[in-house]
This record gives sequence, C-alpha cells and structure tokens, in this order.
Amino acid sequence: MSVTIVIAQGGGPTAVINQTVVGATLEARRRYPGSRVLGALHGVRGVRDGRFVTLSDLPEAELMRIAATPSAALGSTRDKPDAAYCETIMKGLKGVGADAFINIGGNDTSGTQAILRDASGGGMTFMHAPKTIDNDLMESDHTPGFISAAEMVAGAFLSVDLDFRALPGIYVGIVMGRHAGFLTASGAAWTLDEESGPHLIYVPERPFERKRFIDDVKTVFHRRGRCIVAMSEGVADAEGRSLVETLVPPELQERDAHGNLKLSGSDLGQAIERILAEDMPGRRARVDTFGYLPRGNIATVNGTDAREAFEAGAFAVASIEQGDGSVALEFDGEKTVCRAVDLNAVAGKTRVMPDDFLHLHENRISDTGRAYFERLLPRRYDPARPFV
Amino acid sequence: MSVTIVIAQGGGPTAVINQTVVGATLEARRRYPGSRVLGALHGVRGVRDGRFVTLSDLPEAELMRIAATPSAALGSTRDKPDAAYCETIMKGLKGVGADAFINIGGNDTSGTQAILRDASGGGMTFMHAPKTIDNDLMESDHTPGFISAAEMVAGAFLSVDLDFRALPGIYVGIVMGRHAGFLTASGAAWTLDEESGPHLIYVPERPFERKRFIDDVKTVFHRRGRCIVAMSEGVADAEGRSLVETLVPPELQERDAHGNLKLSGSDLGQAIERILAEDMPGRRARVDTFGYLPRGNIATVNGTDAREAFEAGAFAVASIEQGDGSVALEFDGEKTVCRAVDLNAVAGKTRVMPDDFLHLHENRISDTGRAYFERLLPRRYDPARPFV
Repeated sequence: MSVTIVIAQGGGPTAVINQTVVGATLEARRRYPGSRVLGALHGVRGVRDGRFVTLSDLPEAELMRIAATPSAALGSTRDKPDAAYCETIMKGLKGVGADAFINIGGNDTSGTQAILRDASGGGMTFMHAPKTIDNDLMESDHTPGFISAAEMVAGAFLSVDLDFRALPGIYVGIVMGRHAGFLTASGAAWTLDEESGPHLIYVPERPFERKRFIDDVKTVFHRRGRCIVAMSEGVADAEGRSLVETLVPPELQERDAHGNLKLSGSDLGQAIERILAEDMPGRRARVDTFGYLPRGNIATVNGTDAREAFEAGAFAVASIEQGDGSVALEFDGEKTVCRAVDLNAVAGKTRVMPDDFLHLHENRISDTGRAYFERLLPRRYDPARPFV
Repeated sequence: MSVTIVIAQGGGPTAVINQTVVGATLEARRRYPGSRVLGALHGVRGVRDGRFVTLSDLPEAELMRIAATPSAALGSTRDKPDAAYCETIMKGLKGVGADAFINIGGNDTSGTQAILRDASGGGMTFMHAPKTIDNDLMESDHTPGFISAAEMVAGAFLSVDLDFRALPGIYVGIVMGRHAGFLTASGAAWTLDEESGPHLIYVPERPFERKRFIDDVKTVFHRRGRCIVAMSEGVADAEGRSLVETLVPPELQERDAHGNLKLSGSDLGQAIERILAEDMPGRRARVDTFGYLPRGNIATVNGTDAREAFEAGAFAVASIEQGDGSVALEFDGEKTVCRAVDLNAVAGKTRVMPDDFLHLHENRISDTGRAYFERLLPRRYDPARPFV
C-alpha cells in the first residue's frame, strides 16, 4: 500500500513540536514502507502554495536532530482558513495525492482540521496532533509542549524567589496564557518550602480586581518580607474583559486572523508596575514579562515532554486507518497514553484550569494543583535553604 | 594563628555568588586551621546589626550544597554606608574580632570596601571579591556571575530566533544592564548561522536614536523576514539620558541609596512596543523584559562560572596577608587566573563594553565581540537548521 501523508505545524511553536513531526514520519516509514511524508512549509499556507519538503527522504539521524530542535522547523502559520482558503488547501492536498493530513497545533489548528474535514467530502483522513504550551486542549490530561514551558517557568520562579529572599521586594512575572492559567500556576511546581513564592497566582479563570490584588500583595509582604506574583497575560476583570483590553487604547489594540486580541505582556507589565507604584509607594517592585522565553527555550527541553510529543506524532499515523480524529494524552493513573478522540470534542474549544487548582478564596496554589504540577514536573533541583 | 574572617554579599545576587562564600570559607579552613568564618546577614547591614552565621561550623557537604544554590544565601543589601554607617560597621567588625572583611559584590560593593579601608585606621584587611552579571568591573577579563547570566541570554535569543523563523515578526528582548552592554550583546554568542538573530544590539555605550532604530529594524526585516533585537535597559540618548529617564514622568522615577535611577524594563519595553506600533503599523511585534530571569537562573548555572566564583573566594582569603585589595579575573591567553589589584582601581568605577565589540557604524556584533563571547561561552547546543 503506497501512502502519502502531509504534515503541517500551526500556531505558536513549542520546544518539542518537531518531535511530533519526526514521530509521525518514522511511524509512517515503519508502518507503510515506501510511503511518502511531505512537510508543508508554514502550515496550511504551504499546502495552499504547494511548498513542501519530503521528510521521508531524510536519513533518520537528520530527522532525530530536527526532533531535538525547538520551534517549528517547517514553519508555522496563524491563518484561519475560510471557505475559499479551504478549497485551495483541499486542492493542494489532492495535488500531491494526500491520503492523510496531520496538522499539529492547538485549538485553532484542530478547528482548521474540523473545517477541512467538513469541506472534504471524504477520501482523505484529517488528523489533529496536539501541541500547546497553554495546556488548554479538551480531552487531554496535558499537552505536548506544556511540560518544557512549565519547566522554564517553575525554574524561573524558584530562582526569583531565592533572589528576593536576598533583596526583599515585590516581583511580578507576567506569563503567557490567554484563557488558561496552567502555565502561570506551574510557577509553583518547585517551591522550596511553605514560605516560597510565587505567593500569589492570578489567572484568566479568576476575575482580577485591583484593590484585592493590592490587599493580597500587602498581606504577603507583611508576612514574608517579600511577595512573588505569577500573573497570566490574559487576566480579566469580572466582566471578562482582559486587563490589557481595559488598559490599552482601542486604536492600539491588534487582533489576529482568529479574532484573538493581541495580549501585550509589556502593556500589562507596565500597568501593574504603575499600580504598585501608586498603591504601595516607595516599595521596591519589579515586573518582568516572560513572554516568548518559556515557549521554545532550548535550555529547558524536558525529556518526558519530548518523548510524549514524539509518541503523539507516531500515534496520529497509527490512527489514520480509524479515520478523522484528534490525538489526546490521557493519564491512566500510572502513565500517559495516547488515544484518538473526535475532532469535534477538541476543535475550537478551550480547557481551563480546574477551579480547585487554587484555594477557594485565595490566589494561592492548592494541594490539588500542586499535585498535578509535581506529577508532570518531578523536582529537578535541590537547592539549599538560604540563611535569610 | 587564630583568625576571624567576616564575609558579606552585596548588590544583586547571581547564580554563583554562594560559590565565592564557600570558596573563601574552605580556603580559610585549609590555610588557617581553627579559624572562624562569619557570614554577615544582608551584607554590611548584618555587620552593623551583629547578625552573623558561623560558616566555619558547617560541614563541607552542607557548604557545597549552599555553593551550588543560586542567589545570595546570606542575603544582600544595597545600603551605601556614609561616615556614621561606616563607624557602626567598623564597630561590628571589631566586636567580633575580625582580622579581615571580605565583601563580595560589584562596583558599589568595592566602593564600600574602599570607604571602610580609608576609615579603618589599619589593623584589619579589606578584600573585595568580584561578582556581577553586568561584567563591568575594571581590571577583570570577565566577572563571576556573568557567564551563567549570559548563558541564559544566549540560549533565549537562540530559541527566540528559531521561534521567529517559524512565525515571522519583530522581537525585542530587554536585558539588564545600566552602563555596560556585555549581557545584552552575549545574546549573539550562540547564533546558528549568518541569518540568525539577534540582528540588532542596542547597548548603553551607543546613543539610541528612534529614527535610526526604526530604519535598522525595517532594513533587517526586509532582508530576513524577521528582526530580533537585543536591547539594554540602560540605553540612552546622545545626551546620555537613559531612555527610561526620558520616557517616565519624573514623579515616578525612583533612585536607590547609591543614586542609581531605577531602570524599569517594563517601562522601556512598553515604550519600544508603542514606537514599533506607531512607526511600523500592522507588523507583528513583541517585546519581552528578561529582567531578573538571567541573573540567578537555576536552569543555566554554568560550570566554568561556578568554578571561577569559588576560586575568587579562595583567592581572596589567600591574599589577606598581602593587604587590602580586590580580586580580578585575568585571562592569560589560555586560562582565567585570579590576581589581586588595588581597591582604588575597581572601587566605584565601571568598565564598559569595548567599542569594537559592535561594528563601527552598525548595531551588530563584530568578530571581535563574537570571539570574546564564544570564548567565555562554548557552544552548548547543536540545533538543526529549520526548513524555513
């Protein structure tokens, strides 16, 4: 059986998205000898424009080196195909004789796959392979890309907390996350002891209120002599308007093709810094925007994450004969396993962080939340407790 | 000979400053059996207030674990002693019978040592052991703490460049650095090829001009399809006024006890983001403030840096009998060695990045600059070249 598989990458890159490309390519080679695996350049845009590389021609050693490289080696896209665009993609897929199209990405990318499936009229399999540092895909325990990004965030907050023991003050780290606070809350995975930061965690799932925020910071600072805060870019007020939306003049607000407001960590960071300067004058306060630093950081590529991303790609190929679907990562109580789920269960949907990951009335990590992050991120460092 | 040595840490912590404390403690134990090594809590403030831990009482295994922990385990301070404060420090040192006082820090800390030496009237040795991520101490090839911080910055820019190959746009990373651009320029240490970012480097040593900046970004973007920029917090205009100073209302400007203006990465980041939105409308642009993330990051503690920091502490103790001084790291053409220099050669002075580390008329790293950073930071990663 001669098979042609097209693979594309969509949305923001991660540290391990290339593992998924290579996992799929090697599984295709194993399962369908003589098959052709084409990598589309810059996602569906490459399919539309007929820009491909033949991944199945590459030697395994080269593929494995690509797998170990962060970011999307094929390039990515944020294009959201409308009906006309879909037609050109279908034409592109048929033009190369594709039997299956595997698109690796988050909820927007799974949405693209659902649109293509509905427009295709059959004869081709549409698979979605998961990838997102946001960890916000339905049906999954966690997502490839998340653990590596979380490792960067956890290590950063462990380090910053040690820094602020030495020179007390207030620190706010702004972490990517539009709707889901997983990545921000992962900052608490490697705390040293009960006194360790991040002491406060603000996520999109909980309404942000300025007075409450300042009260929280004052309480922690009074008690600990320092206050370390992890805050998502997507924090919003009780009406669901993102803080960035309420702070940035409308004429400067930008949206992408998916209608997503551009969340500027710098805008939010500066606003938070001003709030602290106004409401807690004279206190040493510092705000950093982590931004892109966790997302494909070569210094924190996590081995478990890399392996799971590879397996998700291999599983996508192994599932082609069962028809359209999305690959989900399930935790069976002992280990993480792949299973195929309906595209509709994932497409365009967002999983938010369970409410009980934070304490009921406090912006602190709960034991439930801590257990989740500690399971995904076994403690990597064993620093000494400082004298101060 | 019974000896009492007091050790303190001053200024911003680094990933390896505890190595220097432990290097000094173990050298004192070896050289002066039965000696007492006291660690002052929160720098000279702990000396003044009589708050010490007896480091020489700790088992070697515990000391080595402290050495491997980032940030200042004894706590730090930004106090700048005046005459009255100096008197209380001298009293504190005499109170514990100190024969020598080793203060670990940057130019401000070496300044404190010079003030104390001048006020002491003899009978005690004042040593300065080097530490700063800014790499801006006179007489040194580089400083303990710099290499680890630079490793974080180099890895981050390598990663961000891969990210922006996949999804083109403009990226600006704001890096700590008040007067010296070493840490910012170290972002170019691990570029993948000639096309790799950071494509543009803005440091305090070169006047920043908005029009020139936008022209540079446009040129690179046109040529490469992306533009990655490394920018120091301390960038200043031709009159020497820091960009933060020109952008932030005077009533919001804060200064520390040394008279240093508080440089807010968030303020600068937001200003740069606005400039890009105004002058290059519609272009995807993102600004992140690295801030504290490079300074004591547990994920990028560099082995060479750790060893050199340890040796600087040991050398400080070994030099006590030669009298007051500062420990400098010298590169002899093959390896880095410690030597003692006069406190006055270091105290309160700042070494800036040599002008030839950047191209003469361009904000790009030069071969000379690249050779320096590559010597300090041997390439750690070997990523594959992306298809895009």
